[in-house]
Order: sequence, then C-alpha cells, then structure tokens
Amino acid sequence: MKKLKVAIVGLGRMGEAYAKNLHYKIPQVDLVAACSINPTELAFAEKELGITNTFSDYDRMLKDVALDAVFVISSTDMHATHIIKGLKAGLHVFSEKPLAITEEACKKVEAVAANYPNQLAVVGFVRRFDPSYKYAKDKVDAGAIGKPYLVRSQTVDKDTIAEWQIQYVTKSGGIFHDFNVHDIDLARWFLGSEIKTVWSIGGAYKYPAFATAGDADNVMTTCVFENNTMAVINASRTAMQGHDTYTEVVGTHGTLRIGRPAAMNRVEIYDQYGIRQECVETFWDRFEQAFFLMTEDFINCILEGRQPALTLSDATQATIAATAFTTSFKEGKLITIR
Amino acid sequence: MKKLKVAIVGLGRMGEAYAKNLHYKIPQVDLVAACSINPTELAFAEKELGITNTFSDYDRMLKDVALDAVFVISSTDMHATHIIKGLKAGLHVFSEKPLAITEEACKKVEAVAANYPNQLAVVGFVRRFDPSYKYAKDKVDAGAIGKPYLVRSQTVDKDTIAEWQIQYVTKSGGIFHDFNVHDIDLARWFLGSEIKTVWSIGGAYKYPAFATAGDADNVMTTCVFENNTMAVINASRTAMQGHDTYTEVVGTHGTLRIGRPAAMNRVEIYDQYGIRQECVETFWDRFEQAFFLMTEDFINCILEGRQPALTLSDATQATIAATAFTTSFKEGKLITIR
Amino acid sequence: MKKLKVAIVGLGRMGEAYAKNLHYKIPQVDLVAACSINPTELAFAEKELGITNTFSDYDRMLKDVALDAVFVISSTDMHATHIIKGLKAGLHVFSEKPLAITEEACKKVEAVAANYPNQLAVVGFVRRFDPSYKYAKDKVDAGAIGKPYLVRSQTVDKDTIAEWQIQYVTKSGGIFHDFNVHDIDLARWFLGSEIKTVWSIGGAYKYPAFATAGDADNVMTTCVFENNTMAVINASRTAMQGHDTYTEVVGTHGTLRIGRPAAMNRVEIYDQYGIRQECVETFWDRFEQAFFLMTEDFINCILEGRQPALTLSDATQATIAATAFTTSFKEGKLITIR
Amino acid sequence: MKKLKVAIVGLGRMGEAYAKNLHYKIPQVDLVAACSINPTELAFAEKELGITNTFSDYDRMLKDVALDAVFVISSTDMHATHIIKGLKAGLHVFSEKPLAITEEACKKVEAVAANYPNQLAVVGFVRRFDPSYKYAKDKVDAGAIGKPYLVRSQTVDKDTIAEWQIQYVTKSGGIFHDFNVHDIDLARWFLGSEIKTVWSIGGAYKYPAFATAGDADNVMTTCVFENNTMAVINASRTAMQGHDTYTEVVGTHGTLRIGRPAAMNRVEIYDQYGIRQECVETFWDRFEQAFFLMTEDFINCILEGRQPALTLSDATQATIAATAFTTSFKEGKLITIR
Repeated sequence: MKKLKVAIVGLGRMGEAYAKNLHYKIPQVDLVAACSINPTELAFAEKELGITNTFSDYDRMLKDVALDAVFVISSTDMHATHIIKGLKAGLHVFSEKPLAITEEACKKVEAVAANYPNQLAVVGFVRRFDPSYKYAKDKVDAGAIGKPYLVRSQTVDKDTIAEWQIQYVTKSGGIFHDFNVHDIDLARWFLGSEIKTVWSIGGAYKYPAFATAGDADNVMTTCVFENNTMAVINASRTAMQGHDTYTEVVGTHGTLRIGRPAAMNRVEIYDQYGIRQECVETFWDRFEQAFFLMTEDFINCILEGRQPALTLSDATQATIAATAFTTSFKEGKLITIR
Repeated sequence: MKKLKVAIVGLGRMGEAYAKNLHYKIPQVDLVAACSINPTELAFAEKELGITNTFSDYDRMLKDVALDAVFVISSTDMHATHIIKGLKAGLHVFSEKPLAITEEACKKVEAVAANYPNQLAVVGFVRRFDPSYKYAKDKVDAGAIGKPYLVRSQTVDKDTIAEWQIQYVTKSGGIFHDFNVHDIDLARWFLGSEIKTVWSIGGAYKYPAFATAGDADNVMTTCVFENNTMAVINASRTAMQGHDTYTEVVGTHGTLRIGRPAAMNRVEIYDQYGIRQECVETFWDRFEQAFFLMTEDFINCILEGRQPALTLSDATQATIAATAFTTSFKEGKLITIR
Repeated sequence: MKKLKVAIVGLGRMGEAYAKNLHYKIPQVDLVAACSINPTELAFAEKELGITNTFSDYDRMLKDVALDAVFVISSTDMHATHIIKGLKAGLHVFSEKPLAITEEACKKVEAVAANYPNQLAVVGFVRRFDPSYKYAKDKVDAGAIGKPYLVRSQTVDKDTIAEWQIQYVTKSGGIFHDFNVHDIDLARWFLGSEIKTVWSIGGAYKYPAFATAGDADNVMTTCVFENNTMAVINASRTAMQGHDTYTEVVGTHGTLRIGRPAAMNRVEIYDQYGIRQECVETFWDRFEQAFFLMTEDFINCILEGRQPALTLSDATQATIAATAFTTSFKEGKLITIR
Repeated sequence: MKKLKVAIVGLGRMGEAYAKNLHYKIPQVDLVAACSINPTELAFAEKELGITNTFSDYDRMLKDVALDAVFVISSTDMHATHIIKGLKAGLHVFSEKPLAITEEACKKVEAVAANYPNQLAVVGFVRRFDPSYKYAKDKVDAGAIGKPYLVRSQTVDKDTIAEWQIQYVTKSGGIFHDFNVHDIDLARWFLGSEIKTVWSIGGAYKYPAFATAGDADNVMTTCVFENNTMAVINASRTAMQGHDTYTEVVGTHGTLRIGRPAAMNRVEIYDQYGIRQECVETFWDRFEQAFFLMTEDFINCILEGRQPALTLSDATQATIAATAFTTSFKEGKLITIR
C-alpha cells in the first residue's frame, strides 16, 4: 500500500485533533511533518506523534520535506496564504473553514487553484460529512420531503467557552464568519440556490465584551435565496445546555430535523430534575466522527483521483454570505448580494 | 333537564376531587348529600360545595335523603359494605377501586348486585378512560399492532409520598392491591385473557418501614395468561422524577407505549441539567381528565340506561390477581390461579 | 348562584365550540341568545343548545334580549363593529382575535371602550391560557432562564386545511393577521417590549392560489424589539405532520420550548415507520383546554369585577405588527414601526 | 512500533466485521492468518484483506503461523474448543460470546486458562464497551442514582431477520443463550450480585417454526439476585421498528435508561406518519463503535500487560444463568441457581 506523505500547519486544539486522526486512524497516511509558531505544539508533534520534521517556518517545511499533501489548520487569517503556498509547492491542500473572510481573498485562492487543476484544494465544511446530515441530504435528494423551501440552522456553543472566545473575535472575522459559514453552506446545499438578500440582527446580551469588540454573543439572520426560498440562521455563544447545533429542512411534503436535541449519548436520566438528556459539550464532541470522515474522504479523493463534492467556489460563496451578514448586522439594513 | 340526585361517601383527597367534579363540572348532577366520619371533611362539603345534607352515618344518609346514585370513595376496607348497602337502598353505585381485597368479598358484592339488575354497580378503573389509553385500545382493536402478546405496565409514585403511604399499607391491602390492580386490569383488557400463573418479587429497598409492615416499596410481577401471553407489572413508591405510570403493549406487528415520559406539560427546559421535561407529581395530576370522563360516563350510563363496559366481574378478577401477587411475594413461589 | 345572561354572535366552527363551552361547561352562564346570518347555524343553536332567542340581526338581538355579556365570534371583518355595538348596549364583550386588521379600526374600538370603563372589552389570545404557555411564563417571570432575548414562535396548520383556507384569505386579512397575531402577542409577552423593525418573507410554495390572492402559504418574519431583543415568527399552511404550533423562549440562562412536538396524546407507536408520535390535527385540538380556560376566565372577571391581564391595547399592538409584517412582505423591505 | 501478529477463526458476518476492524483500524495489529471451513469466506480474506495464510484447518493454522493472538469468531458450538487450542498454542485469545452453552464446557475452559496465567482469555460482552453503557456505569458507580435495585434489559432484533435465524437456533443454544447473555452480564454488572432464582416464559407468537425447534420468538425472564435485587430480561425476534436493545437501571435515587429509542441517527422526520425517528437495523449497526472499542481494548491489554475487567468467570456466570432461563422456560417452573 502506497502511503501519502502529509504535513500539517497549525497544531492548536483543532490541529491536534486533525493530526491525531491522520497519524492514528488513516493507515494510508504518513504524517511526516508539522509546522507551528508555537513551540509547545511542536513538542507535542515530536513527542506524542513521533514527527521528526517540525518547523516554525511554513516555507521551509514545504521546501525541505517531500510531501503529497498539506493540511492547513492554522488561524483563519493565514488560511489563504497557506493554501496558495501549498498549491504552488505542488501539493494537494486541505484547509479548515473558512477559506478567508473576504471575497477578494477567496477569489485570489480560486485563481491560483485554477492553475493547478491536478491538485486538490478543499475547504472543510465538516457537517456535510456527519452521517445524520448526509442521511438527510440523501432523503431530500430522493424527494422524501418534496421541494425544500425553508432551512433553519444554528450553530450554538456552550456558554462555558464564551469568555475564552472573546480574544479570537478579531482574528476569526466575528460570529458570522466563525459560526455561521457552516449554516450558510448547509442552507445552500439543501435549497440548491444562492443567497440574494439578508438581514442580520443580534447583540451582546450576556457578555458585553463582544459588543465592545464589534461583535455579538447571539445573532440571527434571515435570508431570501435567488429561487425565493428562505433560511433563518442563528448563532449563539451562550447556551447553558451544551453545544446545540442543528438544522431543519422544511419541504412541501415533510420536514427533517437534524441534530436536535444534541444529546451527548443514548443515556436518559430520571431524577429530581425530571427526565433529561445531557448534551455534547463542544463542536468537536458533536462532529468528531464527521471530522474523521471528512479527512478520510480527502485522502481517498487523492488516492482515487476523485474530485470532492464541495468546491472552493462553495467556500467562497459562504464567505460572501457571511460578509453580507456582518455588514447587515453592523449597518442595520438589508444587504442584497446579487 | 332532569338532574340525578347523587350522594358521596368518603371525602378524603380522592373523595373531595370526585365531589368537585360532580358539583362543578357535570350539569346533570345535583350533589345533594355527603357522608364522612371526619368532621373536617363534612365542613368542606357544607362550606365549599353548599351541601346541607351531611352525615357521619352512612345508613342514615341512605334512609333520609331521596337519591338516585351514590359514589363510594371511602377507605378500601369499606368499599364492599358501602356498595352493598347502596344497592339495597335502590341506588346506582359507583365505587373507587378496588372492589375489595379478597375474592370472597368481591363475590359477595357480585351476588348482591345480581339481585338488582336495573341498578348500575361500577368499580372505577380510571386508566381505561384516559384518552391516551383509550386511543391505544382502539388502535389495538383495529389490528394496528397485530396480535398483542406482551404487556408491560407500571404504577409508580413520586418518592415524596412514600413516607405518608406507610400508614395506609394495612388498610389498603398493600402495594399489589393499591397500585397494581390498575395494571392488572389493563393487561387483561389489552391481552383479552385471564391471568394463569404469577411470580412476584420485590423489597423495601429505600424505606425499610414497608418491610416491617409486611409490604414493599418496589415490586415486580411476571404473569402468564391463559392464552399464553405475558405481562410484567411493576409498582414503585420511590421514583425521583415524579408519578411515572405507563403501559406498553407489544404485538406481532407493532408496539404502543402509553404515558411515557410522564411529562407534566408541553414545556421542555434547556439549562445546565441538559434538555429535560418535568413530570407530573401525582396520580391525580396524570389522570385528572380521566377521572372526570369516568365520572361523566357513569352518569351518562344511568341517564341513557346503558351498561358500562367494565363490569363487577372485571373488578373481581383484578382482586383475585392482586391477591395472587401478594401471596407469591410473601411465599416466594409461583402461584397458579386457574 | 347568580347566572350571567350571555349571547353569542357567529356560530361557525369556532363559534359553535365557544357556544358549547358556554352552554355545557360553565355553570355560571346562561347562554340565552345567538345570532348568525347562517340559518343552519341558528338551527344548531336551537336544536342542540335549546336556545330560543335566535337572530339573524345583531342589533335586534342586543335590543330584544336582556343580556350581561356577548361573545363576538363572527368573521374577522365584523369584530370591531360587533364589539362597539355590544359596548354601547351596556354589555361586557369578549371577541375572538384579531380585534381588527387595521390600526385605525383597533384604535376606534379602544376609544369607544374608554367610554365604558365598567364593562370588560377583551380580545382572546388563547395561547396565554394554555397551561404549558402559562407555566413557561411563570418560569420566565421567576427568572428561571435569566433575561429572555430571543423568541421563536410559529403557527403551523396541517396541510389538509390549506385548500379550504383559500376562500378566507381576503376576509381574514391574510396569513400574518390570521396566523401570526398569536405569535406576535406571545413575543411581546415574553420579551416585555414592543416590536420596532420587521422583515417578512415567504411565498406560495405549495399552493399557488395563495399567491394569486396576494397571500402566501409559508412566511417568516424577523423582528427587532425596542429593547434590542429579537423574534423570528413563522406561519405555515402546509405541514404534513399536523397542527404544529410552538414557541421557544431563549434567555441568558436557559431556554424553554413550549408545545413541541405537538403530540396528539401520550401514545408512542413503534412500527415499520420507526418510533413515532402522531400530532394534533387542528388548532382547536391543540388548544381546546385553553379555549375553555380563557372563556371561564372572562366570565370570572365579570363575576369578580376583575380586569383581565390582556388589554385591548395588546390586541391593537398585535394588529399594528401584523400589518407591518404584511407591508414588509408585499413591498420586500424593512418596515420600522416606531 | 511492534505489531501483534493476529489470526482469526470464523469469517461469517461477525467474523468479517472483526477482521475488517483488525485489518483497517487498529494500527498495532498485523492480521496475518485466517481460518474458515467456508471457501467463500477465505476468498474474502485473501482478496479483500490480502491475507496469504488462509486455512480450513484450525490446528494447522496454529501450528504453521507465528502468532501472538487469535480471535475466535466461529460458531457458538466451537468457541470452547477453539479457545482451549489457542491457549495451548501459547496465544492470547479473544472469543465472541458466549463462552459455551453449558456450565461444564465453560468450567473446562476456565480450568485450561488457569494453566496459562500470562495469556489473556477474554469473552466479548460488547455492550460494556458502548460509550452510553460505559457512561451509565460510571454514573452508577459514582452514586448518581443511589443503590440500584432493578435492571430492565432487552435484546430485540428487527423482524426481518427472524426467518433467517431459525436455522441457527440449534447451534446457538436458543434465544436465551444467543440474545440474553448480554442482558445477564449487564444486570450482574449493574447490580453487583449473582442471580439466584429465575422464571422464564414466552412463546412463538409470530413464527411457529421457533416452537417446533424447541425455541421461542419472544421471551421474558424475571430474576432475583443474591442481594435481593431484581432484573427483568426480555428478548424478541419480531420488532417492526428495528433493532431495539436497551437497558434501564433503577436505583433508590434515580434511573438511567440506556439506548432507547434505538434511533438510527440524529434525524427526526415530520411527515404524514407524525413525528418519528427511524431505528437501527441490526445489532451491528447499534454497536459498531463498541465492537471496535472492545477489539482495541483487547489489543491494548496485550500490549500493556493489563488484565481486562471482564473475566472468563463472568462469561461462565452468564452461561449458567442463560441455561437456567432455558430450563425454566422448558419446564415451566422457578429455577434456583444457588
């Protein structure tokens, strides 16, 4: 079995999770190099994963190590740069979402990628790989709910992470880019059309620090699509029950609700609080399996010479919409994209 | 509109609830007399319900007041006596369950009732009147689940009532008579057969005082029916979540679960305990509507000259089975009824 | 016991339900007169309810019969007129929602009512009387979920009624007035503020006839309130599963979901379709108990000289908002109310 | 990284699943040999898994190939023999449940294993490795539900497999050995005691062929444990909704329900059947992750020189109890084990 030589850039909590999947769970991969500006992260790569090629300089890694592919799990503001360099180094590139937080930056990556048609350039919208989302999409495609005309989708984090998130607001592009690109991608996927006009509202209802930083802790966006279908997209940093992400697809002949309640497991508890289920804590807890499946699919696409279903253009559209959400929220008016 | 003149004997918490239904909610009834050995209860009848004919002597009430019907909501050990006297006084009689706690006493009532074929003698098995149970029975009768072969049924009280119940253990006949006659009646109803052999086990797992009194706080009985179908019947005095009574009917082509979870209302709570529903507190909270419908049905049976579906013989069978449960529990062996 | 002499105008399916509650279930009421322009409806009142005073002329009824109160359950376009005439006739007046479909008409009723401070003038927003909604409101008021900042609320009818509804679109004021005044009232109730700006979208996704009539079969409205809180309000005429109305109140420390799923009863079915609950068919099935409690509360307010919690002004605000929704939908832009 | 050389005997549907886990998902394993009496199964091992050492003779495999461990996934009647031969060949042995279907055979394996204290001999009770079961056990051990006194547990297969199962009834030891050893093991695990007395009932309610074969399609067993706690254990071959295995642990201060409903995924469907969730099809679908975790744990136990929590003696106790269930069912009486 030929193994792909793979590198990773960025080893924060998400990068570490990707690295472990690549190292332990995907036999067709040799994770041979790692890059981070954080020495602790590199120490982890060396000690726990036994990676000897560790770098603080991304360019040097690309130059010094023979590679087939690179995983870009760096901070949001570095995604575009790292993808472009990876492509130019002749590698297949997988990047965490978002592609970038401006349309301009996205289009620049698309333009570069067009020059490397034999290399994959993929942005990870992980929910599409979650078995429940996939099952729902197959049902919708099979006509089980007729014609979909409304998507409700939310990305909701447990309250306990909120204060930790404040520092990332600036780099990440804010709550719409950081939380709702997933929901935007899903709404486009299920409704089969592009967003035309949006209205975003919200506020810092619990943590005023988000308002100070020009962001919010809870937001809601209404969207009209080009085919006159609708979406309402929420994000919250303040849920008490846990990470509670879900999506609902309403069609002319039925509705599918995916992911609600966000139960931690199959245990129900009967006690003085009533009858209850505990919820997953984090996005990772909810989508751990999907992250693995997405990573595995990228590797298989390379090995099988297959194009992934989700294109760079999908990632660009998500960014365009999230940017429109942000503008609408900041300016308090309807924003028409196209 | 002709109104029925009705009396009630027994005005404890259940009697009071019956009296209020009769007085406030059933226009065809004049609740004209009340009997209790407890002066406080009679004071309630006078002041709150405006009943002027109040008695501490049941015989005197039957003699002094012109009546059409009497409701026997006295303590379990008085049911048979009060029913028989009511019948002999020419009245229609409704009694709370159980008919009596010995087969002998039940048969005696049946024998008396046979002499008064034009008077109703009805024992209230309230769950049959609950809309969900009724809906399930209609489905079963319509063949929706094929042939039923297994009933799981439980009567479960909230823990908070347990210590208060200890004093009633002797009079009520114990946990099998007090809790499980309902489940026995339902199992017979759904399975269409009589119980043949039973094994009852259990203990006083939380409140040793029940063991001291020869009873238990949690019991479980397995039953084989004459048609070789099965039931498993539980009772508990110690549930933390609330009153949690339910019944499950398993058939060759489907299963119906009735009453689980025993949610208090349609509110779900999302908070630090997860996603939860609070439960009903008491049997009354769960079956308030059914108690009303059962009372109304009895009145309508009189007015329309109709026989109720549930006969004295059903009540006798429930007592026979509960007695077998008790014997099996006490002697630790299989008991074959027939 | 003094009984209130009550009349009713309008005996369609809702009027008939009100009439039965008044006649059979509220002992303090004598339903002595009924008015309808439909002879069949009057025949029902005479034969089934034994009402001898039946009229096709509302003015004549008010003049000929000695009354304490009148229930206005006529078509939406007649509510204001019938309320005003009832007040001028010296009666307490209860009207089905909405008060009227223009702010002007509402304000006119308010002005008349101000001249009759000793007579009640009440518009029925039934959901406030549903035990689950009431339970949730009490929890919110007690601080159980912190400060509420988002309400999601929907009124959703089963698909089977849609085609029948087309004929009523014109008279009823359309889907926003007919469906969403409830949700508007609840959002105001839970968020404690008035709606400032709205955006309404939607379409006739399943039944083009609604578009032809200038209406829609599915709509969604986003609202910002004066205190910067949010609501998203949906209406649908096309749900397959049944009547599926619910409301979710999200606060800084918890969330309450009221009414979902809209289960018909406590029966779960396990069969070849999986594990499922059937849903209520109609608004009436879901809120039957609340309609009774609301009617009873109005009667008790009269008898006890008590002011109801919900005022005419609440009804006016609901109309103002529903009108803004309609305008926003028709003109495709944000509408700022205040 | 040193890799363990592993062989497998038995490549039916379960054996194939084990082989794939060992080959693809556990990097510390080299699956180097496979044995089956079925040529098609060996062809699968060669072509799909690239195993060159394939055998129809188990003894020859043990003799010819250098091995560290063997997985015994052969038919139930061969487990004991294959385990003993594996141990005598110096290997660590993992066997699918049950150990054997007679106490005598179990004890014989235990006696042999005692001679090889440095080799692991493990029988797989997979549910203990399911994350939800594990979570529940941790909660119980932490005292979250007080003292457990009742376990309800069932193993329920989807109806579609029933007719296929008939041929295996003789070899597998029947429904109690084949289905309920899992539930027995869990009841012992949660209640911390041994089964004392049992009563098993049931019948062939849907497929008479099971009765002809001396077996049943639905059975129910009540158990009293030595510490006077209780279990009720069901098995069914005829569920319409899907594989619906669950366990409920009732304690003095709370209840945990594990695995119900047996939803296939996180998708809820709203359509003409109501609101529903589809169920998993098979035991494998429900416990796929647990099978992997169990296999991985066995490998890790070898590598880390660790003893697994579940011993051969646990497996023997499960067999003793399942045998008592079978005897009780066949003879129609209580069976006291100890």
